[in-house]
Amino acid sequence: MTQQQRETVARILHNSPVDLGGDVLEQRELFRQLVSANPVSDDVIAEPGTLGGVPAMSIEIAGAAPDGVVLYFHGGCFAVGSAQASVGLAANLARKAGVRVVSVDYRLAPEHPYPAALDDALAAYRALVDREQGAERIAVAGESAGANLATAVMLAAREDGGLPQPSCAVLFSPWADVTVPGRTHDAGLDPVINGDALRLRARDYLQGTDPLDGLVSPVHADLTGLPPMLIQAGSQEYLLDDAVRLAARAAADHVPVTLDVTPRVLHVFQAFAALLDEGDEALARAGGFLRTHLADGTADRA
Amino acid sequence: MTQQQRETVARILHNSPVDLGGDVLEQRELFRQLVSANPVSDDVIAEPGTLGGVPAMSIEIAGAAPDGVVLYFHGGCFAVGSAQASVGLAANLARKAGVRVVSVDYRLAPEHPYPAALDDALAAYRALVDREQGAERIAVAGESAGANLATAVMLAAREDGGLPQPSCAVLFSPWADVTVPGRTHDAGLDPVINGDALRLRARDYLQGTDPLDGLVSPVHADLTGLPPMLIQAGSQEYLLDDAVRLAARAAADHVPVTLDVTPRVLHVFQAFAALLDEGDEALARAGGFLRTHLADGTADRA
Repeated sequence: MTQQQRETVARILHNSPVDLGGDVLEQRELFRQLVSANPVSDDVIAEPGTLGGVPAMSIEIAGAAPDGVVLYFHGGCFAVGSAQASVGLAANLARKAGVRVVSVDYRLAPEHPYPAALDDALAAYRALVDREQGAERIAVAGESAGANLATAVMLAAREDGGLPQPSCAVLFSPWADVTVPGRTHDAGLDPVINGDALRLRARDYLQGTDPLDGLVSPVHADLTGLPPMLIQAGSQEYLLDDAVRLAARAAADHVPVTLDVTPRVLHVFQAFAALLDEGDEALARAGGFLRTHLADGTADRA
Repeated sequence: MTQQQRETVARILHNSPVDLGGDVLEQRELFRQLVSANPVSDDVIAEPGTLGGVPAMSIEIAGAAPDGVVLYFHGGCFAVGSAQASVGLAANLARKAGVRVVSVDYRLAPEHPYPAALDDALAAYRALVDREQGAERIAVAGESAGANLATAVMLAAREDGGLPQPSCAVLFSPWADVTVPGRTHDAGLDPVINGDALRLRARDYLQGTDPLDGLVSPVHADLTGLPPMLIQAGSQEYLLDDAVRLAARAAADHVPVTLDVTPRVLHVFQAFAALLDEGDEALARAGGFLRTHLADGTADRA
């Protein structure tokens, strides 16, 4: 009986005062309160630190022997959210995949427009590759705008002669097109995200950068050479179309890609795994995908 | 080193005299020769019979205890192919999924235009549901035009008050749009399928039926209520776009859907599992999907 669970989560989100189109300072605090209402298990060890000079949170499960590292990018339209707020979801991913997660506190807009967030993300990735002596045991992951950054990091690494690709990428509800074409069917079902909020946050992030640039809108990038990607989305979210189009782009560019859509759930429904079976099951599939590709130890199947 | 394997398979297909746009009687024989060049293991038991009055081949692995039944529809543009020719691929699927496969010898066009094939497919499904006393232990699957029929069977079952949905569906390289819009990027890479051949075979199949009818072009159907679907395709096939668009349609209609694209392989590359690691790995994922949903014993996750 997950319909009741879905209704509970939808009610939480409908009743939340978070409005991603609202005042950014106020929304950062409201977002923090919303996310911190989710329980984090006692066995989660989250330690602040830095990676490549960028603040980052290292997240592990006590007593587990992590096999690989996931570099994680939180969501929040490039304007809100934090590594701290991502601990619940990141810890659940660490548990399912048997890995350590490092969640990056990249700089936020509007104070720090593009490319500040990507610069931070890439600096953290470069430092992790150095530390791990290669990228075979590294995956990237992210949610919403963080999934955009995870993809942009792979594109930027490809352009940088010295940086290898990670073993794979897990993208939860990617915001993959900051032109915000707003094509998703039934977009009105989503209480979290709407086109007006996305357009406002895109303007704050871009501040003059072309929204068709592949490093800000990966659906418009040539994705050739990227490693296996798992893209998850909910059928009731505004950004469903971004997920589908990113998968289509990856497939056309000969990237191994899996698109995994769960019906009647919302944006980043994996964050509600404690309340929602679909979230827990999707995280289990993401964990299996990470285990498979981190164990392969190769950047692609070729 | 699967690049060499991919080149071997591409060479076999490039050198094959099969031309799906050619004379239908000649092509049926050439297709039979091409497919029968694939080895079938000694432990495969394939027995001809009937199901709901329709000729069908029952395929099992000797010594295995099958747990569930997959009703399978072979490919061949609705004009060529047979249950006998599908034995190799169907047996590999039976092995990976731990099931029995029943492959349906539906009537072919141009002698038998739509809805003959769908009538046969639905009669076989209805008989299987009767025999199994429900659809919880039944999945449907198919390749190319057969994946189209597998989808059409689910749509027809939905319209028929008395028929339940199968537990899930596995669709290899579905031909999902008989209007043949021909939009796939790099379509020239595909030696098996081209737009002219598909348009000719669509005319033979339709003989006046509207190609936008959802029962002949599932990308134009409302897919609401269908069970979990796994859609697999290769990034170098002409029908990649059909796979992506069918997944997008399913996602928008709140169907649990997984799109699984393997790079640099061709149409129904799973048929070459003996020569191609990617084919074997894709079949293993399809087998895992079938096991999960047949074990659930429920038509959907809701």
